[in-house]
Amino acid sequence: MEQQELEPWRDIAARKKAEQLDRIPEAWRLPDSTDLDKSNILQIPRQSGSLSDIELQITEEYDASELVDELANGNLTSEAVATAFCKRAAIAQQLTNCLTEILFDDAIARAKELDAHFDRTGKPFGPLHGLPISLKDTFQIKGYDASLGVAALCFKPSTTNSALVEHLLSMGAILYCKTNIPQTMMALDSHNNIFGRVRNPAHKDLTPGGSSGGEGALICLHGSPLGIGTDVGGSIRVPALCNGLYGIKPSHGRVPYAGQQGGLPAGSSKLGIEVTAGPIAHSIRDCEMLLRVVGENQPWLFDPDVIPQAWDQQSSVHNQLTSPRRKHQHPLRIGIVRTDGHVTPLPPVQRMLDEVAKVLRLQPSTHLTSIEVVELDLSSLLNKCIKTSNGLFSIDGTNTWFDLLEAQSEPLSPWLKDRIRRREPKTAAEITKLQGQKLDLQTRSLDIWRESGGFWVADPSSSTTLSSRKQSIDREIDVFICPAAPHPIPPTDRWNDVNYTAAFNLLDLPAGIIPVRSVSAEDLACEIGSSEPLNGWDKINRGLWGEEERKLYKGSVLSVQVVAPKLQERRLVEAMAVIDEALKRGKRKGAKGSKL
Amino acid sequence: MEQQELEPWRDIAARKKAEQLDRIPEAWRLPDSTDLDKSNILQIPRQSGSLSDIELQITEEYDASELVDELANGNLTSEAVATAFCKRAAIAQQLTNCLTEILFDDAIARAKELDAHFDRTGKPFGPLHGLPISLKDTFQIKGYDASLGVAALCFKPSTTNSALVEHLLSMGAILYCKTNIPQTMMALDSHNNIFGRVRNPAHKDLTPGGSSGGEGALICLHGSPLGIGTDVGGSIRVPALCNGLYGIKPSHGRVPYAGQQGGLPAGSSKLGIEVTAGPIAHSIRDCEMLLRVVGENQPWLFDPDVIPQAWDQQSSVHNQLTSPRRKHQHPLRIGIVRTDGHVTPLPPVQRMLDEVAKVLRLQPSTHLTSIEVVELDLSSLLNKCIKTSNGLFSIDGTNTWFDLLEAQSEPLSPWLKDRIRRREPKTAAEITKLQGQKLDLQTRSLDIWRESGGFWVADPSSSTTLSSRKQSIDREIDVFICPAAPHPIPPTDRWNDVNYTAAFNLLDLPAGIIPVRSVSAEDLACEIGSSEPLNGWDKINRGLWGEEERKLYKGSVLSVQVVAPKLQERRLVEAMAVIDEALKRGKRKGAKGSKL
Repeated sequence: MEQQELEPWRDIAARKKAEQLDRIPEAWRLPDSTDLDKSNILQIPRQSGSLSDIELQITEEYDASELVDELANGNLTSEAVATAFCKRAAIAQQLTNCLTEILFDDAIARAKELDAHFDRTGKPFGPLHGLPISLKDTFQIKGYDASLGVAALCFKPSTTNSALVEHLLSMGAILYCKTNIPQTMMALDSHNNIFGRVRNPAHKDLTPGGSSGGEGALICLHGSPLGIGTDVGGSIRVPALCNGLYGIKPSHGRVPYAGQQGGLPAGSSKLGIEVTAGPIAHSIRDCEMLLRVVGENQPWLFDPDVIPQAWDQQSSVHNQLTSPRRKHQHPLRIGIVRTDGHVTPLPPVQRMLDEVAKVLRLQPSTHLTSIEVVELDLSSLLNKCIKTSNGLFSIDGTNTWFDLLEAQSEPLSPWLKDRIRRREPKTAAEITKLQGQKLDLQTRSLDIWRESGGFWVADPSSSTTLSSRKQSIDREIDVFICPAAPHPIPPTDRWNDVNYTAAFNLLDLPAGIIPVRSVSAEDLACEIGSSEPLNGWDKINRGLWGEEERKLYKGSVLSVQVVAPKLQERRLVEAMAVIDEALKRGKRKGAKGSKL
Repeated sequence: MEQQELEPWRDIAARKKAEQLDRIPEAWRLPDSTDLDKSNILQIPRQSGSLSDIELQITEEYDASELVDELANGNLTSEAVATAFCKRAAIAQQLTNCLTEILFDDAIARAKELDAHFDRTGKPFGPLHGLPISLKDTFQIKGYDASLGVAALCFKPSTTNSALVEHLLSMGAILYCKTNIPQTMMALDSHNNIFGRVRNPAHKDLTPGGSSGGEGALICLHGSPLGIGTDVGGSIRVPALCNGLYGIKPSHGRVPYAGQQGGLPAGSSKLGIEVTAGPIAHSIRDCEMLLRVVGENQPWLFDPDVIPQAWDQQSSVHNQLTSPRRKHQHPLRIGIVRTDGHVTPLPPVQRMLDEVAKVLRLQPSTHLTSIEVVELDLSSLLNKCIKTSNGLFSIDGTNTWFDLLEAQSEPLSPWLKDRIRRREPKTAAEITKLQGQKLDLQTRSLDIWRESGGFWVADPSSSTTLSSRKQSIDREIDVFICPAAPHPIPPTDRWNDVNYTAAFNLLDLPAGIIPVRSVSAEDLACEIGSSEPLNGWDKINRGLWGEEERKLYKGSVLSVQVVAPKLQERRLVEAMAVIDEALKRGKRKGAKGSKL
């Protein structure tokens, strides 16, 4: 018997890869001489000669916000922009395996229609007129697969659009590709049997992250100005972190998520943890632009779970700082969370967080960006999230996925082999109990924000002391900063602990990633203290600080996570912008001596 | 063996009733000569002589909004107001069995503290300073039972406050009593073995409704200026309807509901249908006041499920009518829904709805209240809600309730006897499927609001015709009006069909009740046509139009339900106020000839 008959997925994968290659024009293919094995391939698109000067300019020199402006005022045509990004995405695909579905022909045809509309009316079609946006493979676009990289779902094109696809199209966006993900989406790398493995463009041996890993690599290579990922445990934030990008995971109910292909029956999300969709981009302002434009255009008409609150109806950090209705005007108050109490961050993460806190404390006090830093100890709360998250991640015992894989005799991806197996699905009583625990933890998390809640700790080096806490007004923090992982970007298939991101899915708090600085030689010289590991996970994490591993980290990016109260995405991105600016100012000063 | 030993619940019930009576001062008890058997007992509190002139004035002549104003400007003391309502609630309890927990001593002590605060500071304690608010028994108040009228939960005082209790107290409200409910809360009357049966104050033989039936009777008798009920299938709206009151069921996430005693394990609501809390009152402006004050005081700090959107951040019907951002200013557009396609409303309900539509169509066109009426056919959508609602109402197979009842050998209430039994709990897979169906129906319901959605029908008598629908702008409706039941207030224990209210719990749309007019002699002369009943439920409904039944309806109130898009409570109450005013104007004219 032939291998093919025993493993029908191989034939499907081969046809799918052939279809993919077929959708990349000959002229856009890289020469065979291209060195795909280079550790850092960021310069190859520029060096390849495939892109014209104007295409290089469009893809490298404008951010998404500028593209929207230039398209809307007619300085750039949709066709020129769409073509440039299709071409560059094709190159990125050849370099990193970052794509799944390729829609270049449709995209360029739509761009021409948008240009015709502009010529005819003198006006943009909508607030995203002509902006190419890349989408994770889980989004459904009529006529294209949402295969999730599993053979059983290949060549079954979607018959409806996901809610956000409808919304983006109604605003004039151009959808031109979907991006690669890991098998089952329960991994923080991005490998599957159909489309293969996504690589990290800047560091061959480090992971590009997952599950929106294709987005991370594509945007990192400027093959997309703005991408939409989804996140149920870190899947937007991890690839943002692994590729030095900004990414926002909103709370459930902010951005339309309805109509995804998640590999699970409709209704599953209601019993487990809600997945949310959000932007990955090169700047916080591009993330903000996407969330604002979506929010201002009645997204609740597309998805019944989206709340009817426009972006400008959300509380603003800036209004708040100056609002006459607040009894006491207060500076932007930022909490610092050092650990989840479960896995202690490795030295470079600790050092970077120290520096961030210091820069923020030393921030010159101007009206809008006056910053106060408060130390928080959330270890008792975050530590308790793990068990409930794990329970809710696996309510169907992974049976739906095993059914899909076994239908075409597909093997598990390497990282998943020892990590998942068929289990008994959880009973309704078990799920009820887990949902009760989730509610309890969410209720406790309300106390994070207020001084009297029990999580604020005295910090002698800050202006906040225990004695000042006795004042009668219960002070509040706006956001807090914490690690997004207890380690730097790890080697491929070595991501392990996910609680630093997943806790905020369980608690349903919006959270975003800001890249801070690169791992330095000084970081690499730091040793872990001699204390015993806290537990098995902590021990595995220390394993990422061995001699061999450390060699790989040099120059890789360290990022922080910023977290806001539930559904306060506007407050989150505004605070992130202030923090990002403070860190950049710190870095500029750093040239004259400081750390950042 | 003694009866008591066989039925331990009897002893518990006797002790509970004795405790209740003990908490009513001797001076407030009605004389034995009181005719409790009168069909209409609305005048007894006034005639009883227990209430002073000022107490009659406080309880009858002010609405909750005025009380808040008079308390805040010092024209009324908290003690006077609290005492008046405690006294009147005590009378209402003796007349209708409407209370469960009695907190009069605590309430008056708190009122004195609030007065002292006012004297000291010259300011009210908060936006609800001194306002007595009654709560359904399901709310937890530290130190008092939340027994739900079941012996197994008696004499187990709550150790924490429900989220809304905390919120109301923080705003200066006075909590002075909790109100009676039906056993299991799965009934639309209000009977249980501990506190007995609530009666309808205006019509002895008609039901007071349920499950917030105690609230209905208490407020109807002016024993409370404002009450909070909860609603998962109609439990705020049905008692509002049965007692000629206004009531609002918000969408989930608007009013804090956390920390209730629901007789089910924490987390159950996440798998089934979310219960929501909302006001019952004498006027739409009192319902609006409660929702506005709750909304403006950061309710999301008390319950993680509440969205951070203040009342004034919600869209307003009035802003919308005049907003420069709307391309086409439009009048208030109101849909009329005649039937759920499952049970045809009886003649008086049909006639009343006809009249309402006519009055709204003939509404003189002034700037703010210009009204356009659109006929909607939602039968294909609402009909489909029944099966999914029923599935999600019974996910635990009623086992938790049977366990509670059997623990003290309690029998089922009369209405429940043939309606519930222990069943197999639903499996996680079944619940997932039901949640998927719910999402599908919610997604379809997004089409209600827009002309292109397929639910709008041509109506030759309205300004909306099929031809005018061809215009390029997709028009929207603001709210729609429909029956809240397919019958008038039915005789005790005869409420049957619940889909007219429950569908909007499943779809999570905010909905409110407006009393319209009394059943007339003309109504009672109308016969049902000779067509076959649609189904068994429709046949049972026709049974409510027999000769004997009709005799009971004369003079009882007919109400309509108003429904708005999800989480648009502000739009709902504003539209309800416009509709209420139009109906009242219609009624004033009616004195000169028209129907209303």
